[in-house]
Amino acid sequence: MKNINKITIKTKKALSANDYFNGIKKGNRAILSKAITLIESTSFQHQKIAEKLIELCLPFSGRSVRIGVTGIPGVGKSTFIEALGIYLIDKKNKKVAVLAIDPSSKKSGGSILGDKTRMNKLSINDNAFIRPSPSSGALGGVAKATRETTILCEAAGYDTILIETVGVGQSEIEVKSMVDFFLLLMIAGAGDELQGIKRGIMEIADAVIINKADGENIHNTKLAIQEYKNALHLFPANKNGWIPKTASCSAIESKNIDTTWDIIESFVNHTTINNSFLENRKEQAKFWLEHTINSSLTTLFYTDKNITIKLKIFEKKVMQGEISPFKAAKELMEIFKS
Amino acid sequence: MKNINKITIKTKKALSANDYFNGIKKGNRAILSKAITLIESTSFQHQKIAEKLIELCLPFSGRSVRIGVTGIPGVGKSTFIEALGIYLIDKKNKKVAVLAIDPSSKKSGGSILGDKTRMNKLSINDNAFIRPSPSSGALGGVAKATRETTILCEAAGYDTILIETVGVGQSEIEVKSMVDFFLLLMIAGAGDELQGIKRGIMEIADAVIINKADGENIHNTKLAIQEYKNALHLFPANKNGWIPKTASCSAIESKNIDTTWDIIESFVNHTTINNSFLENRKEQAKFWLEHTINSSLTTLFYTDKNITIKLKIFEKKVMQGEISPFKAAKELMEIFKS
Repeated sequence: MKNINKITIKTKKALSANDYFNGIKKGNRAILSKAITLIESTSFQHQKIAEKLIELCLPFSGRSVRIGVTGIPGVGKSTFIEALGIYLIDKKNKKVAVLAIDPSSKKSGGSILGDKTRMNKLSINDNAFIRPSPSSGALGGVAKATRETTILCEAAGYDTILIETVGVGQSEIEVKSMVDFFLLLMIAGAGDELQGIKRGIMEIADAVIINKADGENIHNTKLAIQEYKNALHLFPANKNGWIPKTASCSAIESKNIDTTWDIIESFVNHTTINNSFLENRKEQAKFWLEHTINSSLTTLFYTDKNITIKLKIFEKKVMQGEISPFKAAKELMEIFKS
Repeated sequence: MKNINKITIKTKKALSANDYFNGIKKGNRAILSKAITLIESTSFQHQKIAEKLIELCLPFSGRSVRIGVTGIPGVGKSTFIEALGIYLIDKKNKKVAVLAIDPSSKKSGGSILGDKTRMNKLSINDNAFIRPSPSSGALGGVAKATRETTILCEAAGYDTILIETVGVGQSEIEVKSMVDFFLLLMIAGAGDELQGIKRGIMEIADAVIINKADGENIHNTKLAIQEYKNALHLFPANKNGWIPKTASCSAIESKNIDTTWDIIESFVNHTTINNSFLENRKEQAKFWLEHTINSSLTTLFYTDKNITIKLKIFEKKVMQGEISPFKAAKELMEIFKS
């Protein structure tokens, strides 16, 4: 009995890397979903298949525009992404994948895309694929899962990848390093609403889009745009020569969504012409190589038994000024090496 | 003959950690200078004495205000630092140490403080100590040398440490992590002059000071201050509750230098009261512990013979999209571990 059961389960479940790949290439969304779950799995067996799958998909990846969308809760990110997604599918004949990175999902209960119904129209559209934030337990971190998911989605034919973050943590720098275009969504009024955005994010934005430009808010939005224009003009130029743009829209009324898309298109043209589009992607690949090596090394270090015993003691001494951080690091490294 | 020479040299040169320490405590600037050279030395013997010396100085360190001063060449950094230093010595009874970090010094021929005569008055003042940028060959990097130099200067009784950078490289984030107050020096006109400042620096500044507010430039400066005020107000608040300030001065005419100092003093008061001054220093010490561990680990990795052979090949494959950066990192880590 037991044996039969096992076989049945195996026949039903265990797809090979090639099975996944063929399904993905055919645009089968159920298989794409399963493949992403495979990528996020911490099982050794799953990881082996996932690696093979990524390898198969790599030659078919890269042919998309990858867009990061950041904004604190309340600016209307989901509504904006839905409006932009529907616009791209209906007017531009695009296939849109929406991924999310939410480092706080454990704490907040998974606010980002946790509930697909927040994007009613997009979630049932045949040309859209929506994937909630991977669990933070994913092997190698959320960033790795998101980058690999991008590869799978591209191989499945999605030509526009929207990656969503909340703009409060470290993840924005990571997202900036996996997208072509980084969009900061804001609302008018530079008061308390902005307290949550991490410093430095505005300076890495390729565009600041003021949402909720509707009803009584239209006047405030105009003022806000002028303010952001003035601020962005104080920032130094980007290496790629792109000057960050400011615009407004009303996602809820699907108004001026085209303006935002025009900005993104002109960015793609600009960076394609001066070759920085592909250069940036190469730099990003190199960044992820180095970044992954670094985090593997620190994992190796901080999970070392002898280190964990000593680390707390040294850390305390360092923070109390009893030992120089350099001396402490040196002594810990000697423990690690031996 | 040979032996006699050796002994003579030894008698003349080799101070013990205690000798250095006693000299430093007495405020002997020649010994302080020699001690800093010791810290920067890559010799194993020197490093051993240096470590002991830091340990002796640590209990007498910390009692200063550490100020980072950043601005691209042309904004008048040296003139500003000289004016501020002289003001602090003459009017506030301070002892001022000026250190420099210049990552580009090799390329540019060492523009920062390479020539002490750029600070005529300060360099001959008994209450000032000026130290040019350490050579990039210094063990563990320029940041380590600068942080340890700060400790020695504090033990020597300097109560105001000014750390100068050019604002074009990675070093500003490092400087931000070793100072209490981060000052960005600018001049009026947000045009080409700013192209050199790295993005993100404005957002970490505790004050933006517009220099060269003199002669025909006064009107432009007023406009610039208003612009920066508007821009800074768009940034989210700092964790410590400090709202970055804007002011102007004319370093060459020693005008309004007191305004800048008033800002720094009010920052120190503000952060002392809410306890973030010391909290920040503790966080910084922890940061340097982690930072040093990280860079020791990567050095260990990248100098591994087997790695150096394979790395270039993998890097090329990753940048050409032939292998995923995560897979490449994994394979390299396996080589490293074996």
